[in-house]
Amino acid sequence: MTLSVGFLGYRFMGQAHANALARLPMFFPDAPEVERDVLVGRDEEALSEAVDQFGFERYATDWEEVVDEVDVFYNLGPNNLHPEPSIAALDAGTHVFCEKPLAHTLDAAERMAAAAESSDATAGVAFNYRFVPAIQYAKALIDDGFLGDVHHVRAEYLQDWLVDPTAPWSWRNSEDVAGSGALGDLGAHSIDLAQYLIGDTIDRVSGHLRTFVDERPVPGEDGGGLDAAGSDSVETRPVTVDDAYTAQAEFEGGTMGVFEASRFATGHKNANTIEINGSDGSIRFDLERFNELEVLDSDARGFETVLVTDPDDPYLDHWWPPGHVLGWEHTFVHENYEFLSAAAAGDDHDPDFGTGLAVQRTLAAIEESDERGEWVRV
Amino acid sequence: MTLSVGFLGYRFMGQAHANALARLPMFFPDAPEVERDVLVGRDEEALSEAVDQFGFERYATDWEEVVDEVDVFYNLGPNNLHPEPSIAALDAGTHVFCEKPLAHTLDAAERMAAAAESSDATAGVAFNYRFVPAIQYAKALIDDGFLGDVHHVRAEYLQDWLVDPTAPWSWRNSEDVAGSGALGDLGAHSIDLAQYLIGDTIDRVSGHLRTFVDERPVPGEDGGGLDAAGSDSVETRPVTVDDAYTAQAEFEGGTMGVFEASRFATGHKNANTIEINGSDGSIRFDLERFNELEVLDSDARGFETVLVTDPDDPYLDHWWPPGHVLGWEHTFVHENYEFLSAAAAGDDHDPDFGTGLAVQRTLAAIEESDERGEWVRV
Amino acid sequence: MTLSVGFLGYRFMGQAHANALARLPMFFPDAPEVERDVLVGRDEEALSEAVDQFGFERYATDWEEVVDEVDVFYNLGPNNLHPEPSIAALDAGTHVFCEKPLAHTLDAAERMAAAAESSDATAGVAFNYRFVPAIQYAKALIDDGFLGDVHHVRAEYLQDWLVDPTAPWSWRNSEDVAGSGALGDLGAHSIDLAQYLIGDTIDRVSGHLRTFVDERPVPGEDGGGLDAAGSDSVETRPVTVDDAYTAQAEFEGGTMGVFEASRFATGHKNANTIEINGSDGSIRFDLERFNELEVLDSDARGFETVLVTDPDDPYLDHWWPPGHVLGWEHTFVHENYEFLSAAAAGDDHDPDFGTGLAVQRTLAAIEESDERGEWVRV
Amino acid sequence: MTLSVGFLGYRFMGQAHANALARLPMFFPDAPEVERDVLVGRDEEALSEAVDQFGFERYATDWEEVVDEVDVFYNLGPNNLHPEPSIAALDAGTHVFCEKPLAHTLDAAERMAAAAESSDATAGVAFNYRFVPAIQYAKALIDDGFLGDVHHVRAEYLQDWLVDPTAPWSWRNSEDVAGSGALGDLGAHSIDLAQYLIGDTIDRVSGHLRTFVDERPVPGEDGGGLDAAGSDSVETRPVTVDDAYTAQAEFEGGTMGVFEASRFATGHKNANTIEINGSDGSIRFDLERFNELEVLDSDARGFETVLVTDPDDPYLDHWWPPGHVLGWEHTFVHENYEFLSAAAAGDDHDPDFGTGLAVQRTLAAIEESDERGEWVRV
Repeated sequence: MTLSVGFLGYRFMGQAHANALARLPMFFPDAPEVERDVLVGRDEEALSEAVDQFGFERYATDWEEVVDEVDVFYNLGPNNLHPEPSIAALDAGTHVFCEKPLAHTLDAAERMAAAAESSDATAGVAFNYRFVPAIQYAKALIDDGFLGDVHHVRAEYLQDWLVDPTAPWSWRNSEDVAGSGALGDLGAHSIDLAQYLIGDTIDRVSGHLRTFVDERPVPGEDGGGLDAAGSDSVETRPVTVDDAYTAQAEFEGGTMGVFEASRFATGHKNANTIEINGSDGSIRFDLERFNELEVLDSDARGFETVLVTDPDDPYLDHWWPPGHVLGWEHTFVHENYEFLSAAAAGDDHDPDFGTGLAVQRTLAAIEESDERGEWVRV
Repeated sequence: MTLSVGFLGYRFMGQAHANALARLPMFFPDAPEVERDVLVGRDEEALSEAVDQFGFERYATDWEEVVDEVDVFYNLGPNNLHPEPSIAALDAGTHVFCEKPLAHTLDAAERMAAAAESSDATAGVAFNYRFVPAIQYAKALIDDGFLGDVHHVRAEYLQDWLVDPTAPWSWRNSEDVAGSGALGDLGAHSIDLAQYLIGDTIDRVSGHLRTFVDERPVPGEDGGGLDAAGSDSVETRPVTVDDAYTAQAEFEGGTMGVFEASRFATGHKNANTIEINGSDGSIRFDLERFNELEVLDSDARGFETVLVTDPDDPYLDHWWPPGHVLGWEHTFVHENYEFLSAAAAGDDHDPDFGTGLAVQRTLAAIEESDERGEWVRV
Repeated sequence: MTLSVGFLGYRFMGQAHANALARLPMFFPDAPEVERDVLVGRDEEALSEAVDQFGFERYATDWEEVVDEVDVFYNLGPNNLHPEPSIAALDAGTHVFCEKPLAHTLDAAERMAAAAESSDATAGVAFNYRFVPAIQYAKALIDDGFLGDVHHVRAEYLQDWLVDPTAPWSWRNSEDVAGSGALGDLGAHSIDLAQYLIGDTIDRVSGHLRTFVDERPVPGEDGGGLDAAGSDSVETRPVTVDDAYTAQAEFEGGTMGVFEASRFATGHKNANTIEINGSDGSIRFDLERFNELEVLDSDARGFETVLVTDPDDPYLDHWWPPGHVLGWEHTFVHENYEFLSAAAAGDDHDPDFGTGLAVQRTLAAIEESDERGEWVRV
Repeated sequence: MTLSVGFLGYRFMGQAHANALARLPMFFPDAPEVERDVLVGRDEEALSEAVDQFGFERYATDWEEVVDEVDVFYNLGPNNLHPEPSIAALDAGTHVFCEKPLAHTLDAAERMAAAAESSDATAGVAFNYRFVPAIQYAKALIDDGFLGDVHHVRAEYLQDWLVDPTAPWSWRNSEDVAGSGALGDLGAHSIDLAQYLIGDTIDRVSGHLRTFVDERPVPGEDGGGLDAAGSDSVETRPVTVDDAYTAQAEFEGGTMGVFEASRFATGHKNANTIEINGSDGSIRFDLERFNELEVLDSDARGFETVLVTDPDDPYLDHWWPPGHVLGWEHTFVHENYEFLSAAAAGDDHDPDFGTGLAVQRTLAAIEESDERGEWVRV
């Protein structure tokens, strides 16, 4: 069986998933066969180029036509484009793989989860960091009882690409399109990872959001640089999302959580870190040191730096010998392998839209807590 | 002029300060001369031994007699013993150097600050981590504008000595004696360091406290091991303080803060860490790597690991050549040098009781926030 | 123009290069078009599978037929198969990309370099670690004078896959096939990197080689496990190469070098590290932290950890946003891009066979030095 | 019994040992009592000041008078002053603690070892880095068989204080006084540590020495800065020792060693590092991270960072709670405790002059190897 796929979105995420699909046959020969069929977007010239570069057959400018023409619909568009096309595809029995966060609003996320619930198709949300081998390795340890009772989780996701106030406005700065800022874009990963790894659910949160720079220059028509005449004459748009958030959390089992994400954390590019402390051990991960997991066993005296590249590590038998490190994009290969295998078999994919909705509820609770100045139950 | 000193307390903190006093003449020849006069406590046998070991002249069992016999009174007792002796000493015109946190209650701290205010004597609170050379170096950088606008501060203080539920009860587990647990013992350091380094004050907080183990065995009469007959027959006492706390903070200038301390952070012994991100740079410190400061300059691409051991680094001209690292106890030498110099000169010491009170207000606000489930203004 | 390519070898290196070729169109659209034509080997069943998996058209069992049927011949076989096929291909005007070390003997390397010299085709040797972005970044810094006078280089390449004496024999343990062991397999990389980065040539060396385990079990017919009956009955073959080497070197410009590689360095999987100290700065790299370069500038106080993933870093505009890290296999994409571009344009590739020969002369000098017990001029 | 001590030398090493003696009573109450009696030197004004600062009774300008007036003679002078006073003291039955390297020449070292052999007094050489708790901890592990067969040792000692060609000349640059440069000053530590830790002896070496800057300005009469008139008019003296050395070694048991030290390793202040790889495990230490030992156990996957500050770690029961880190100077406290205890008991101290001589033989062999261009048996 060959699965035909269509992508809504053809830029950063489009390339990441197209690359993943292209690599499956050589490294995961048992993955379902895939036909890269159609890219959906608005700019026909850009679409035409992307079709060539990403190895697709064609492009389309109307997602409504596409959602039932393909076997699998990838929703890689801005967050406010997640709901309607995904729901339409699911209603048409088309499998849907949707980027995170699930939606730009909690209401939309609920509608999406409901659509997934009532569809026979497979619906997955692309929390790709679950598929880092070091994270899978940690998950297996934890499921095995390695941590004992979990007392603490702290998860940060630090970037600094907006610390320059002249960095250009993009849809990621718009509440209407993105829903939230660092919270939804980065925090969604942290929250999902935390809940996934410790196998527990956040019960209540106290959140804090902040926008450091209120408006940003609009990029020029070429999509790139700013007006050379200087900032006076530059058109700006308001930043209506958070530049950073922090949150405290209490999990149902009593674990204390601390969460933070920022686009203003000078010196950090993509520092998605998580540490968990339990009664019997601890683990620590930093995405910038992708191939390493730090583990502390109950009978050890300090953290052990494990290079998770051995043949019996998760997914590693598909790749290279020990110490021949993988990179960020491999998470997409792994998650596409899992999602497409599930779709082909008619199985559920984990994480599914229900998982995405659970994260979205936490995002919403953090925002509500920030507004109300008090703890909010998720 | 020779300053005679008396210590209330002669265990861990007693030895740390006694050692500091003993080392001043060789390394800080311009420090005031000190006569180690009297140790105050209750157990005469232990006191007698400590007098010998720490190089004191004598001991006493009643602090009331001592506070006006010495020039300088060191209050190194449990937190609930901080107020009355310190106030009595200050009222007697005796300089007071008091361990942190300033007191076990906010009310007591206020009375102590008032006593300091109305006394001509010098009153200092022993936030020793200010006197780590790397911290002083960071402070000088920051005062020089190195960070630009400060967006983020995150400060953790992680230990794991209580993760074992059979670890014995001590006064640090008693609210009556200690006031709070990880919050006051460890969090006080974090809060002071954060406010000191960025030169700004926490405006409001959201706090979360938790006690993971509710009662602990009482150590045997020999002060050491547990009853060999097993836990059934072991006498226990309730733990009435937090084992861990987390907090979010908003500083007056808008900086977002995240704070956390725990005695349950498996794998961490004394991980007092702080990171600050500003618009122009960042700094990062970890007490377990005492001699290092990580700095990120605006024109740099990554954190630079500075070994703060050069002759022109803070206090380093008093010690060894570059790369000949210092340790934890040197913070006590430095703070005693500063405090005694101030006392001898009739100057104020920074941090003073007002600083201690400000920290105490934040501690109290975090506790109140935890109880009320909402943000609390400091 | 489309370049047809044939590979001699279809296992580890075959997959690494096949993957690189497959990825060029999506990420390096200006690379020459490539037709993956033919895989050459002996085991037809394995070849047939590899043809499918790697996206080739066909296989062949006789390299002599192939070398003038393709535009580019990749020599990815064991070292003793490097000379004749490569020379035949070059004589036929076919471009040759040959894995390192150039050959199993110095004599063979000299014949290969002579063949390359007299051929119009492009001949490249696959020192892939030159094409790590962090290494390219370091090279640019160094060419810019960043280091000043270079005093020291130290380069280690540490693995531990042979520390278990029951690890199976392979062609890499045979002098006839491999030429040398850790020296040629790993040391060749270190020597090339050192000479490349500092732009200077090793003048003389003192070498030391050692074989810790003299014979190893032959893997069973299935190419995998050992005889379950135990080691008594297991057939073994002699290990005729070094398990580890060390070398001191003096470069023509006076730089002091220390080199080491081992397959017995317990705890290291692929620790290809190099540090260079100059009068004005230093750089440090570790392959296991692929995306990082540590740089020390003349006006800095410590090493700065640079995450070499910015858009203006070498090759990074072809990949992902800052902090979205690359892995080991990307070096193959980069070197194939460079080699194929050179071949298509009729240009030389750097490193060429002359470079490979220079490294081989150093390898031979290290072996000769070890035998003679004295320094040997390269 | 109180041991009276005299120091030859009262600068860097004088202060390090004086401080150690001063700290023993408070932290090692069972150490012999010590009377800091007499400092020996030439500059009476400086001596007089040092007597006050270091807590001595008096000074003397003639060591010959002193060596039999004291119970213990500390030889902390330049290397060429090690032999005669030490021999005279030993002949007088006075215990001798001598700084490393044992002497400036092999001949002198042999005479010193002979004098120690024929004296009843205790003779110790001050290889202080043996007394880092992390090193003692490593030694205990290794003695327990933790490493299995030792395949590799690599030991570097990197500093950069001479990389500036205008850094002033000192006795450490003079062969007549120091014997050698980085080799004897730093390499002696590495060689001793390596032999001590693995419990094996270097059998043969290949050495390489180099002087990068041939002459250096003489500091002004005040012992400090240079002539303000500039370098033209500055008096210089020749540098007659090595600025850096490298060596390969073969131990009697077959272990391969690599050694290096430099005063030109830009970016390193006091990087005394050692790594040992055995068949069952590895250990790694860096003096700049004084309190950490990295250990790799046979059943572990990566190096574990052990903070060697627990109460049952070597010497730690004398100091502070876990995670309250020690520094460089504590090595002197520990070694003085051991040496004085041995002297008081009439026991040998390890390392003794025989150990110092063995190291000196290796230093001499490295120099001879460098001159002859071939391996030299120690």
